Amino acid sequence: MGLKVYADRMSQPSRAVIIFCKMNRIDFEEVKIDLSKGQHKTPEFAKINPLKQVPAIVDGRFKLFESHAILRYIVCSFPSVSDHWYPNDLTTRAKVDSILDWHHANLRRGTMTYVFNSALAPAFGLPFNTQAAEEGKKLLISSLLKIESLWLKGDSRFLLGNSQPSIADLSLVCELMQLEVVDNNERERIFEQHQKIRDWMENVKRATHPHFLEVHGIIFKVKALFESRRIKASPKL
Amino acid sequence: MGLKVYADRMSQPSRAVIIFCKMNRIDFEEVKIDLSKGQHKTPEFAKINPLKQVPAIVDGRFKLFESHAILRYIVCSFPSVSDHWYPNDLTTRAKVDSILDWHHANLRRGTMTYVFNSALAPAFGLPFNTQAAEEGKKLLISSLLKIESLWLKGDSRFLLGNSQPSIADLSLVCELMQLEVVDNNERERIFEQHQKIRDWMENVKRATHPHFLEVHGIIFKVKALFESRRIKASPKL
Repeated sequence: MGLKVYADRMSQPSRAVIIFCKMNRIDFEEVKIDLSKGQHKTPEFAKINPLKQVPAIVDGRFKLFESHAILRYIVCSFPSVSDHWYPNDLTTRAKVDSILDWHHANLRRGTMTYVFNSALAPAFGLPFNTQAAEEGKKLLISSLLKIESLWLKGDSRFLLGNSQPSIADLSLVCELMQLEVVDNNERERIFEQHQKIRDWMENVKRATHPHFLEVHGIIFKVKALFESRRIKASPKL
Repeated sequence: MGLKVYADRMSQPSRAVIIFCKMNRIDFEEVKIDLSKGQHKTPEFAKINPLKQVPAIVDGRFKLFESHAILRYIVCSFPSVSDHWYPNDLTTRAKVDSILDWHHANLRRGTMTYVFNSALAPAFGLPFNTQAAEEGKKLLISSLLKIESLWLKGDSRFLLGNSQPSIADLSLVCELMQLEVVDNNERERIFEQHQKIRDWMENVKRATHPHFLEVHGIIFKVKALFESRRIKASPKL
């Protein structure tokens, strides 16, 4: 029994794992767990991941959740993975780990809180929480500033001045892609001060072509749907 | 130049790194960065860690922050570290990684938010935020339930049924020790339903004796100070 990846492509860490597997030509089966239909809450899925979250993997009899742990595990168990994704070099690997650990309480928390409370909440039957959205946006913006000043110095194409992407680049850029579903003008206002971030995102997209765009297809569909609803709801001039 | 650990023992991840180094007889220098005096905000410390947080390390010319990344780095660069801390076995290591990744947005976030808003805030010139304290406590309690049901099954002495502690045990128990500074009755009410958690904490304390208690000395002093203040402030019967 080969590797199974339980995922919903609307979830940013799910996308990171799927793109990573495709980029490294890993033979895996993607099992869709539709969050909007509550499939992550079923007793069947609790046997895969008792935390009821995606992504999760099953490799033979081994089960694992948490996307960063999954990415590290795949790196170490599939020899086909190129070294640049999680370098064997001790200090480079430690720096990648440091960014991945920082991600949780900073870029991830900021982006998730902002996107949920400014775009996704109604899809889950909840009202927008403008205060939470503002707090999330503040953390998101301070996270962007830190990424630029700490890890994208000079003409760096990828984090840490690397010439090829690591799992930290992939994980963080998939996170930022979640912003596609918020109001276009709002997103533009956030990114307009951060040309380095835009360039870096383009570099990651190019380095993971065509899988990046293919796996993000659902995000672009939801973005289009939300935009059309916003246009209908906006006051006529 | 040997390993320098920049830390404040009032910070739970700082304590985890210090205890870990002591347990593994690593030759290191502890450099105190007093958070209460704002020493983490100085330009000198920004050269060590531009994020202005502890712990951070300098090993020769190599600088690193984020406690989990630091622990992983020390494991891999000091051959004296026993395997049980971060097992070489691929699947066991992946499970330890999974717990460490889970920690950030769950036990850590819950405990930090609760402790800050129910005990530490006045020391930083801020009022208690009872709503934030409640939200933090809720996340803390749900995290305790998850630790018990997922990783402390049966008579397990340590997480994942291991017979000796890993860096995940140390990191999570140092987090929980932060609860020493909240009101005694409050803490007892939280722990009284969680005997497995109490037993596990005792196991980690014993396995890391005498360093655990020595490094936590400052926490017990602050606990005593806060308790005496609470007694003075409580209404006379």
